[in-house]
Amino acid sequence: MQTITTAAALRAALSSRSGSVAFVPTMGALHDGHMALISAAVASHDIVVSSIFVNPTQFNESADLDAYPRTPEADAALLQAHGCDVLYLPEVADVYPGGTDESLTAGLDFGSLTARMEGANRPGHFDGVAQVVSRLLEIVQPDTLVMGQKDYQQVAVVRSMISQLKLGVELLIVPTVREASGLAMSSRNRRLSIPETVAAATINRHLSAVTAGLAAGWPARELEAIALRELGLHPMLTPEYVEICDGDTLLPYENGAPVREIVVATAVRCGPVRLIDNRLFVPSLAEEVNP
Amino acid sequence: MQTITTAAALRAALSSRSGSVAFVPTMGALHDGHMALISAAVASHDIVVSSIFVNPTQFNESADLDAYPRTPEADAALLQAHGCDVLYLPEVADVYPGGTDESLTAGLDFGSLTARMEGANRPGHFDGVAQVVSRLLEIVQPDTLVMGQKDYQQVAVVRSMISQLKLGVELLIVPTVREASGLAMSSRNRRLSIPETVAAATINRHLSAVTAGLAAGWPARELEAIALRELGLHPMLTPEYVEICDGDTLLPYENGAPVREIVVATAVRCGPVRLIDNRLFVPSLAEEVNP
Repeated sequence: MQTITTAAALRAALSSRSGSVAFVPTMGALHDGHMALISAAVASHDIVVSSIFVNPTQFNESADLDAYPRTPEADAALLQAHGCDVLYLPEVADVYPGGTDESLTAGLDFGSLTARMEGANRPGHFDGVAQVVSRLLEIVQPDTLVMGQKDYQQVAVVRSMISQLKLGVELLIVPTVREASGLAMSSRNRRLSIPETVAAATINRHLSAVTAGLAAGWPARELEAIALRELGLHPMLTPEYVEICDGDTLLPYENGAPVREIVVATAVRCGPVRLIDNRLFVPSLAEEVNP
Repeated sequence: MQTITTAAALRAALSSRSGSVAFVPTMGALHDGHMALISAAVASHDIVVSSIFVNPTQFNESADLDAYPRTPEADAALLQAHGCDVLYLPEVADVYPGGTDESLTAGLDFGSLTARMEGANRPGHFDGVAQVVSRLLEIVQPDTLVMGQKDYQQVAVVRSMISQLKLGVELLIVPTVREASGLAMSSRNRRLSIPETVAAATINRHLSAVTAGLAAGWPARELEAIALRELGLHPMLTPEYVEICDGDTLLPYENGAPVREIVVATAVRCGPVRLIDNRLFVPSLAEEVNP
């Protein structure tokens, strides 16, 4: 695996190689969830490029940025072991040579996609995401961008950006990888104490209950309210939202609406961190329940 | 496979053979659920005896007794194909030579086990079950009695009867077998129209939702109420009850109570028949949710 720290060197390295390129952007502190992205990329492309860049423009809390785990040596070893070909490990100035201006993404309109959930709870977050992803795509110029389902709203925003900017890159979404406890893998999990890890593992059970309720045709708003209330009863958890959305618009799912997929998404504060998770549900079966 | 129609001939046949005996009592109209019982019996015993006897004393509705499906030739072929050794196919007079007196089970007290669910909704049903099972055990004298989990309350009653009468027979419980749709297999399913079969298949999804809710620590009474209400919204379904019980006492499960297992049980009228189903849940995980 080549490790490259500048955009110019990356362009030079990639222009000397032929074949399809998959790109896996990360913020480091890599875990099995990231490795699932790498493996999906390796399985379907000739060249896999990953980046580790803790993008300052998508953090709306400086404490979260400062505390974000950084494990560069372990990350590089994991990437190499999983078949990554090129690691792009830039400084901020290399990604944003003219400063963090927003010219690349200035005209974008995400409509309902950023109105709720992370968009409502993390001001500026998705502008920062769009900015860094558009800039990284400009540098790497991949055929395929690989992202994880855990950041479902982020994926929706990036898909919209790709469409609006006509970037012509494919998007490959990889299912969330979970601990045996059901806890969605996240770099932020490293900051949880053991009791907090146990508490956080309950989040997935609430999402499972909501999904099973949807499969039985139970009312979406009632399921959201129960899950939010019950999550909040745990002394170590402070839920911000539980939302059952149309996966395409991220607007509230109304029972019986003919949607492609439903996403049940939540954000929960647990100890020092804020965790997000989601589950997808294809409503073909639910439609039959209460005709 | 030997087919035998009298208790005397059955005793004679079994006394000439040595080895462990498993007994699978049925009311005929056999399906894959029964075959799972036969297969479990065959796998663990030397001799497998099954009976087909539509016991009049456990039917509280004569219309249900009259309409109960009877398919003796197909049943015998299925039993033989699955390794059953002896089919006991008696007339009513052979099972109840002195009439359907209740002397065998007169002193039994099932306490809370028959107070609710089927016990409350089908007067006399479990007295009839206890009567016929005790009489069949007297005739067959098996080492092991094999029953299906679908009739969870019946199993609890029979277990109590075996204990009270010190019958010394083992009880082997086999998990419910379901159609691909999730519908629990039942001889009564044959009486459903196709739309009714589709409607009945939703019952299992409500039980799944309740079970998933319990796993997340959601309140049992609230889950019962939602499932009962939502089942009742289906124009082809009329639920009688949805109860979340301590599996040992069949009394209402209280969240957080230290029980061995929880049973989520329901009875639903669908077209011409009344269907029962249940799901088991071991609450070890739920305990952690809202400490």
